[in-house]
Amino acid sequence: MSQDLSYIRTVLFRNSTFEIVECRWNSKSVSAMHSHGHSQCCVLVQEGLFKDTQVKDGQKTVSERGPNDSIVTPMNATHEIRCLSDVGRTIHVYSPPLAQKTDSPNFATPTQSSLLSDPDLSLNTESPSFESLSRALEAIRAKSISTDSPLFMNQLFSGVRPESLLSDAVLSASKTTMATLEASPVFSAIEVLVVKELGKVSGWDFESVEGLSVPGGSAANFMACARQALDASAKELGNQSKTFAVFVSNEAHYSFLKACAVLGLGTNSVVRVACNEQGEMLPDALELAIEAACEEGRTPLLVCATAGTTVLGAFDPITEISKICQAQNLWHHVDAAWGGPVLFSKTHRHLMNGIERADSMTFDAHKLLGASLSSSFFVTRHKKILLAANDVFDGGYLFHSDSDIDRGRLSWQCGRRADALSFWALIKGQGTQGLGDHVDRLMRLKDDVARWVKDQPRLTLIATPQFLNICVRVTPPKGQEAQASQWSKIVRDRLRDSNLAFVNFSTNSQGSFLRLILAHQDIELVHVQNLLLAALQES
Amino acid sequence: MSQDLSYIRTVLFRNSTFEIVECRWNSKSVSAMHSHGHSQCCVLVQEGLFKDTQVKDGQKTVSERGPNDSIVTPMNATHEIRCLSDVGRTIHVYSPPLAQKTDSPNFATPTQSSLLSDPDLSLNTESPSFESLSRALEAIRAKSISTDSPLFMNQLFSGVRPESLLSDAVLSASKTTMATLEASPVFSAIEVLVVKELGKVSGWDFESVEGLSVPGGSAANFMACARQALDASAKELGNQSKTFAVFVSNEAHYSFLKACAVLGLGTNSVVRVACNEQGEMLPDALELAIEAACEEGRTPLLVCATAGTTVLGAFDPITEISKICQAQNLWHHVDAAWGGPVLFSKTHRHLMNGIERADSMTFDAHKLLGASLSSSFFVTRHKKILLAANDVFDGGYLFHSDSDIDRGRLSWQCGRRADALSFWALIKGQGTQGLGDHVDRLMRLKDDVARWVKDQPRLTLIATPQFLNICVRVTPPKGQEAQASQWSKIVRDRLRDSNLAFVNFSTNSQGSFLRLILAHQDIELVHVQNLLLAALQES
Repeated sequence: MSQDLSYIRTVLFRNSTFEIVECRWNSKSVSAMHSHGHSQCCVLVQEGLFKDTQVKDGQKTVSERGPNDSIVTPMNATHEIRCLSDVGRTIHVYSPPLAQKTDSPNFATPTQSSLLSDPDLSLNTESPSFESLSRALEAIRAKSISTDSPLFMNQLFSGVRPESLLSDAVLSASKTTMATLEASPVFSAIEVLVVKELGKVSGWDFESVEGLSVPGGSAANFMACARQALDASAKELGNQSKTFAVFVSNEAHYSFLKACAVLGLGTNSVVRVACNEQGEMLPDALELAIEAACEEGRTPLLVCATAGTTVLGAFDPITEISKICQAQNLWHHVDAAWGGPVLFSKTHRHLMNGIERADSMTFDAHKLLGASLSSSFFVTRHKKILLAANDVFDGGYLFHSDSDIDRGRLSWQCGRRADALSFWALIKGQGTQGLGDHVDRLMRLKDDVARWVKDQPRLTLIATPQFLNICVRVTPPKGQEAQASQWSKIVRDRLRDSNLAFVNFSTNSQGSFLRLILAHQDIELVHVQNLLLAALQES
Repeated sequence: MSQDLSYIRTVLFRNSTFEIVECRWNSKSVSAMHSHGHSQCCVLVQEGLFKDTQVKDGQKTVSERGPNDSIVTPMNATHEIRCLSDVGRTIHVYSPPLAQKTDSPNFATPTQSSLLSDPDLSLNTESPSFESLSRALEAIRAKSISTDSPLFMNQLFSGVRPESLLSDAVLSASKTTMATLEASPVFSAIEVLVVKELGKVSGWDFESVEGLSVPGGSAANFMACARQALDASAKELGNQSKTFAVFVSNEAHYSFLKACAVLGLGTNSVVRVACNEQGEMLPDALELAIEAACEEGRTPLLVCATAGTTVLGAFDPITEISKICQAQNLWHHVDAAWGGPVLFSKTHRHLMNGIERADSMTFDAHKLLGASLSSSFFVTRHKKILLAANDVFDGGYLFHSDSDIDRGRLSWQCGRRADALSFWALIKGQGTQGLGDHVDRLMRLKDDVARWVKDQPRLTLIATPQFLNICVRVTPPKGQEAQASQWSKIVRDRLRDSNLAFVNFSTNSQGSFLRLILAHQDIELVHVQNLLLAALQES
């Protein structure tokens, strides 16, 4: 942009909540066509005449604005401002501040001992000024891992959607608990709406669906349900002297072990079932495992199918598993924490075929869909089981008015944050179709990435990706062959230490490999190409 | 304020995140000395000269400001602006918008069926505009219960502190999980700092303290610890065939029943111990209860003392209970979810004398201290027990670097919100002394309220308040004596339905009584007097 076309930009104020900028224009000034990313922008015209051209969802709007007019640009819209008069002056307010979305991410992990003695973090007896708290919070933000960067692919989530950021602000200010309707009528209804939506896309009977937001690791809830379904006296009498068996695949999440420990079943109750090379549970192996457990005198409690495993992104065959569960009268849960959003995609819903026969599901909106952490749900098509497992009050539950039940009675929690709002805001803001479009776009990107990787001589896919986990091994350059089994891990650390990308790694019998997660709303092929090309650089 | 002194105020823009106001001044204009409550205020001088007088924590600052200067007022500071020139123009930015803090609270609970069909809440297939989401969120905020009003006294919390609102915004934008250090180095350190602070005020050995933020109802964690302490094989083998006994007072929170159901102990394992008239557990009764359980062949697992009961605010005698626990080798937990903040008060810390001998504690910062919901902690002085009870990875735990352990291994959760930040921000912003001052102020207010209530012929205290629960029965007016046992409940509903106050009620053998909770940072005697005088009005 040449000097003639430019404008003078002065930051008047910035804190962690908002930023105010003044711009001075002349008759030749024009901004670039730009987006403010996660920030909302409000421009107040002080002096002069301006033409504002906005593009949002492919629709263009042009307007002229003079003194005392304002121009509001929603997050993720693009716009261009052109000055039509000799001089002009505008005040721009960005919330959150533009500076919060930096182009250069931070992936550094300082040691805990250095952080524990960091003055920005330290606590004191005396009260400092509010400003110093504000500055310390800004420092905390700056020192934190940039999980909002498309190059953050380490977790099964990346970035937070603007819809959820906005809803978080409302939730914080509305501080409430999901325990009782009288304290939280609106958020109780919002939880019901979200849960019913999840039941709908699962093909469950509308009336029979019930569910709750749960603080991540929702295993506790569904296991409590399975135990209660098996034995109506479990709530009062506990596990008694039974030795339970819980069946999950070799590739299932480690949280099953934790849940079994907490629930008093013991980690030994977890039975791991073999998978095929794609990481999908083998139904025959499941049948054999159930048989073996019965022969050992154990009580089979539930089978969990995983929809989107942690490493390979595999989908267990839900239909086959559900047939086995029905034949054996076992509770069938589906852990769709990662893969669940395919339910919103017409093209990819088939990956979860059979979910309509399952008894319950875990669904995380904070992973693939970009809600705030955490936005996890336990949903079941057995309406009464949550109350049966968790309610400790007397039986004053009137079935003719069950929409008006205090939702705390369904949960083992009392005070509970209204985590459903974040997912609600995503659906409200994008429509269920928008959620499906996000999945479809990333699945196309996954194919593009896989195709490109296959053409790179020193990159090897661990498995043809079925979902949004790209598992790829990096072959070391000439002279480093001795480190072949460790090379991907070495490369991973190098990428992170140079703030180029934060990807995860895993290992199989041949050594380490990279695991890239495609989840960020802005991630493109070029991001993946650049980071893998950097990974191929000689060190 | 006469017209001459005033200024012209125009709202230019407002959404749920910020509000922009233009003010035009003349040489006689002066604002009232005012506070913006929960909003931060930033004034940009466009034209003219102004004198700004700010008062914060009793300190006065005066400054003169001209064009392009800005005036920043922190939340809860008060200030006055006076125009010194003939004309003036200022732009004011408030975040969150002033309109979010209304003087007239909303305590209405619409039916769930009306909310489930409310267009502001409904979900659709298509994506609407971002603005319509923003409008819907504003409607949700407006329809929600005003928990930020000092007249909201229904829960064991009231209001959220500005420090926590600010930290929430940073937490949302920093979306992270407490599972691993590499994803969350800064928030891991913050959790350690907060936990160590709680250990310090409990008089525990600094090195031995460990703890975690937990999603409310932290019972699961401490019971898992007690089980693990009793039997090192509990994690692998579960409850086996033991019948446990868990001892809590008659006045303890109902969540113990829920926790015992989830943990597979069964609700029948809860043994209720008798209290005195103040609601404090009787140590003699505890000893007898333990003896009886042993005679029945049950395995005593733990004793929980409550510091601040839900209804009466009673503190169980921790020292006496800890002696019994030590003699019997029982885990001693203290549920200080409500009363814990007395630990920060020099004057009232004695209520929790004996905590230094307890094994673990529940502490909620979102109740009395006004952190965001939830900000709950489980802390213990047995450093290794959390890892022993919850870690399911192999024993690669190196004790020489235990400050650098992934904190997810201590927890039964995997993805976990960094709830510690909200409490951290309170301590950072107010100092530990500020937390104690808050307790001291409310305890003086409690005495004032009790004194005033005693002078009201138709109000009867249920017990002399030891803590910040004011339990008071309202005698019906002449002619309504037949409804005496129900009268307080009737009054409570009337207060709420007319948006005058939202207080809770409970019942004893003589019928219902009001329970008022003193927790809000701005609550004063006059609020309580006004609502109780309204409660005495003939209906």
